[in-house]
Amino acid sequence: MVTAIVMVQAERLRIQETAEALAAVPSVREVYSVTGEWDIVAIVRLSEYDHLDDVVTGHLRKIDGIVRTQTMLAFRTYNEDMLDQGFGIGLDG
Amino acid sequence: MVTAIVMVQAERLRIQETAEALAAVPSVREVYSVTGEWDIVAIVRLSEYDHLDDVVTGHLRKIDGIVRTQTMLAFRTYNEDMLDQGFGIGLDG
Amino acid sequence: MVTAIVMVQAERLRIQETAEALAAVPSVREVYSVTGEWDIVAIVRLSEYDHLDDVVTGHLRKIDGIVRTQTMLAFRTYNEDMLDQGFGIGLDG
Amino acid sequence: MVTAIVMVQAERLRIQETAEALAAVPSVREVYSVTGEWDIVAIVRLSEYDHLDDVVTGHLRKIDGIVRTQTMLAFRTYNEDMLDQGFGIGLDG
Amino acid sequence: MVTAIVMVQAERLRIQETAEALAAVPSVREVYSVTGEWDIVAIVRLSEYDHLDDVVTGHLRKIDGIVRTQTMLAFRTYNEDMLDQGFGIGLDG
Amino acid sequence: MVTAIVMVQAERLRIQETAEALAAVPSVREVYSVTGEWDIVAIVRLSEYDHLDDVVTGHLRKIDGIVRTQTMLAFRTYNEDMLDQGFGIGLDG
Amino acid sequence: MVTAIVMVQAERLRIQETAEALAAVPSVREVYSVTGEWDIVAIVRLSEYDHLDDVVTGHLRKIDGIVRTQTMLAFRTYNEDMLDQGFGIGLDG
Amino acid sequence: MVTAIVMVQAERLRIQETAEALAAVPSVREVYSVTGEWDIVAIVRLSEYDHLDDVVTGHLRKIDGIVRTQTMLAFRTYNEDMLDQGFGIGLDG
Amino acid sequence: MVTAIVMVQAERLRIQETAEALAAVPSVREVYSVTGEWDIVAIVRLSEYDHLDDVVTGHLRKIDGIVRTQTMLAFRTYNEDMLDQGFGIGLDG
Amino acid sequence: MVTAIVMVQAERLRIQETAEALAAVPSVREVYSVTGEWDIVAIVRLSEYDHLDDVVTGHLRKIDGIVRTQTMLAFRTYNEDMLDQGFGIGLDG
Repeated sequence: MVTAIVMVQAERLRIQETAEALAAVPSVREVYSVTGEWDIVAIVRLSEYDHLDDVVTGHLRKIDGIVRTQTMLAFRTYNEDMLDQGFGIGLDG
Repeated sequence: MVTAIVMVQAERLRIQETAEALAAVPSVREVYSVTGEWDIVAIVRLSEYDHLDDVVTGHLRKIDGIVRTQTMLAFRTYNEDMLDQGFGIGLDG
Repeated sequence: MVTAIVMVQAERLRIQETAEALAAVPSVREVYSVTGEWDIVAIVRLSEYDHLDDVVTGHLRKIDGIVRTQTMLAFRTYNEDMLDQGFGIGLDG
Repeated sequence: MVTAIVMVQAERLRIQETAEALAAVPSVREVYSVTGEWDIVAIVRLSEYDHLDDVVTGHLRKIDGIVRTQTMLAFRTYNEDMLDQGFGIGLDG
Repeated sequence: MVTAIVMVQAERLRIQETAEALAAVPSVREVYSVTGEWDIVAIVRLSEYDHLDDVVTGHLRKIDGIVRTQTMLAFRTYNEDMLDQGFGIGLDG
Repeated sequence: MVTAIVMVQAERLRIQETAEALAAVPSVREVYSVTGEWDIVAIVRLSEYDHLDDVVTGHLRKIDGIVRTQTMLAFRTYNEDMLDQGFGIGLDG
Repeated sequence: MVTAIVMVQAERLRIQETAEALAAVPSVREVYSVTGEWDIVAIVRLSEYDHLDDVVTGHLRKIDGIVRTQTMLAFRTYNEDMLDQGFGIGLDG
Repeated sequence: MVTAIVMVQAERLRIQETAEALAAVPSVREVYSVTGEWDIVAIVRLSEYDHLDDVVTGHLRKIDGIVRTQTMLAFRTYNEDMLDQGFGIGLDG
Repeated sequence: MVTAIVMVQAERLRIQETAEALAAVPSVREVYSVTGEWDIVAIVRLSEYDHLDDVVTGHLRKIDGIVRTQTMLAFRTYNEDMLDQGFGIGLDG
Repeated sequence: MVTAIVMVQAERLRIQETAEALAAVPSVREVYSVTGEWDIVAIVRLSEYDHLDDVVTGHLRKIDGIVRTQTMLAFRTYNEDMLDQGFGIGLDG
C-alpha cells in the first residue's frame, strides 16, 4: 500500500469545486481544505507503487482549478492496521 | 469533527522512534514518514475544536525527538462519510 | 468561539476598498492595513467551527481585489474574558 | 490609537506559558496560539505611537520562552468604532 | 515624528522615472535606487501617525511603475536630533 | 557621496543598546528600530566609496549584539540637495 | 566525464510529454518525474565539459512544456566505475 | 523498481568522506558532490517500495557527517531500459 | 575602481543572446552562463562610483531578454593588483 | 578553462581575514567582499574540470572563518579573449 499526500493550491474563486473534484477521484481517500500556504490537501492511497504516476501526474494534477501541487510520498505508514479498521469510534484521547 | 495535519521535522537519528511515539497518541489517526521538506506527517482527528490546543500544543508537540512542527487545520473535510467506513476495500481507481 | 486571522495580499491600487469590503463582512471583527509582507489582516470570530469554511473560503476569500490569502487559525484564545468586555478604557500599560 | 500585531515563535516546550505571559502584559489585548509558521499572535493596542518601542522592543519581546518575533504595524484600523464596543453579541454572519 | 522605510520593486525599464516620482512626494525625505532584492528605497517622514495610511497606501504605493512594495515602520528613531540639523558637514568618521 | 542602508538583526534582549551603539558611529546618519524581518536599519553616509569596507565590514558589523546584517548600497541618491538642507520644516504633504 | 542534474518545472498539463521529450535527448541518461518542489529530474552525462552549454542551455532547456529549470553540476562522481557497469543485478542492500 | 534522489547537506569539513560513505551503501547507485544549495546528491535504486524506509530513513540518513537531507521520490522512470544496459558508450549527443 | 556583480535571470529561450548582449557592453568585464538559481552572471568594472547607476540601472538592466536582475556591489576587491595583470598564465594551484 | 563563482558567508567578525585567505589560494582569481545575502564572492579559474572538486570542496571550502558556501559553475564564458588580456585600460563605457 502506497500513500501520497498531495498539497494543492487552487484558483481563489474555485477552491470548493476543486476540492469536490479531487474527492471524486477513486483512489483519493481524504480531501481537506486547509489553513496556511496550501488550499487543499488530498490523501491518495494505492495498492501498487506503479499506479502512482498515472493517478497523480496523469489524472489528479490535471483537474481544473488547480494552480500548483506538491506531493509528499510516504516512506512508511506507522499505523496501517488502524487504517483498515476505519474511524468514528472513541476519537478523542 | 476537527482534523489537523501536523508536519513534523524530527532529529535526524530519531525519525522512526518519533513517528512511533506520535502514532501512540490516541487522537492521532495516521502517521507517515514522508519525502520532502518535512520528515513526518501526523493526522489528528478530534470530536471537539476545544480539545485541539491540549492535544497538539500541550501533548503532541512536546514529544521527544521533535525539532519543529507546523500545523494545517482543516476548514472542511470533503469526504467525511467515507472516513467513517474505513479503508481497505477496492482501493485503486 | 473560533478565531481565524486572515492575512491578505490585495491589488496594489485597491488596498483601501478591499479592506473596507472585508470590514463589512459580519463575522469580521477587526481589519487592519499593515506593514510588511501582507497588505491587510482580518480577524474573524465565529461561534461555530463548522461555519469557518463557508465564511472564509466561501465568502471572504472571494472578495474583489484580493490576490492571495493565508489563514492562521487559533488553537486557543488566551484572554477571551477580556474580549467579551471590549476595549477603549485604560489602554497603555 | 496604534495597533501592532506581533507574531511570536516560542520554545517548543513552553508555548502555553509564553502565551500566558504575553496575555498578562497590560497593552496586549488579544493572544492566540495559532496554526502555521508562527506559534503565537499577540495584538497590542496603544494610545500613543511613542509608547510602541518601549512596549514591544523594551518589554514584550524580552519575555522568557520567546525565540523570534515579527511585528506588523497597522497603517489604519478599518472598524475602530466596533472595537470600542466590544464583542460577544451576534457573532456569526 | 513617524518614519517609514518603503522598499519598492519597480518595472525593470522604469526604475529611474519611478524613483523620481517617489522623490517628488512631499513627505518623502530620501529616495535611493539600491543593490539587492529591491530596486528603490524611499524614506517617508510624517509629523502624525494618522497620516501614514493616506500617504503610503493612498498615494505613494499607487505611483506608476511600482510592482510591489514592503514597508518597515520605525518603532523609534535613535538620532532624531541629528536629523533636525541636516547633513553635509564632517561626514566620514 | 555614497549611501549604504544596513539592515541589522540583533540579539532579542539587546536591540536597544545595539541601536544606540550603531547611532554612535560617526558616519551613521540615521538609526531606526523597525517592524518586520529586521530589527534595526542604519543609514551610513560617506564621502568616499573607498571608506565603505572599513566603516561597514571593519567597524559597524563588529558591534556587539549584532547577529546578522545585510547591506543595500545606493546606486544613486535622488534628492541629494534636500539631504544637505536638513529636515524638520514643513514635513507632511 | 561531466554530469549535470537538471531539475525541471513543467506545465501542469504536460509533465509526461515533457519528460518523454527530455528522455529522447541523446546525452540525457535518466529522466524521472518526482515528488516535491520540482516535477522532473534529468541526469545528463557528457564526455566534455565544453559541450555542456550547448546541450543544457542551447538544447535541453528549450524543450516545449518546460517552465523553469535549475541545474546542479557534479564536482565529482564518487562511483564512476559502477556507472560503467550498468544496473539491474543485485539491487537491494 | 523504485528510485529515490536524496539531496544531502554535509558538514563543511567532511563533504568528501560523507560522499564516500554514501557511495558504499549497496542500494546507492550514484553519488555526486554538486554545486548549489546542496552538497551531495545520492541516487538510490530498490526493487521494492517497502524497503525504502529502511534504506533511506533507517540507514542512509544516519550516516555521520550528514546535517540535513531531502528526498525526491520518482513517480516514474522514463528510460528504465537504458538504465539496465549501463552507460559509457556513445555519450554526447 | 568599483566592481558590481550582476546576477541575471533571462527568458528561457534567449539566454545565449542575452549573455552576448551583456558581454558587448563596454564596462562589462566578464559574462558567464551559470548553474543554479540565476542564468547569467555579469561582472561590471567602473573607474567611478558615480557611473554605476547609469551603467547598471540605465543601460545593462534594460537589455532585451532580461527578466530579473540582482546586483551585489563589492565593498572591497582583495586582489586588485592581480586583476591589472591579466589571467592566462599558471592557473591551477 | 572552467570558472566557478563561489559565494561565501563568513563569521561576522572574520570577514576580512577570510577574504584574504581566499585571495591567497592560487586558482582564486578574484575575491570581493559584497553587499547583500552573501559576504564574499570568490572567482576560481581552472584549466581542468577534474581539478574542481579538489580546489573547491577539498581546499577552498575548508578555509577557517567560512560558515557556508554556494557555488555557481559557469556553463560558458562569453568573453574569454578579454580575460586573457587583463583589465585596467579604458574601463568605463
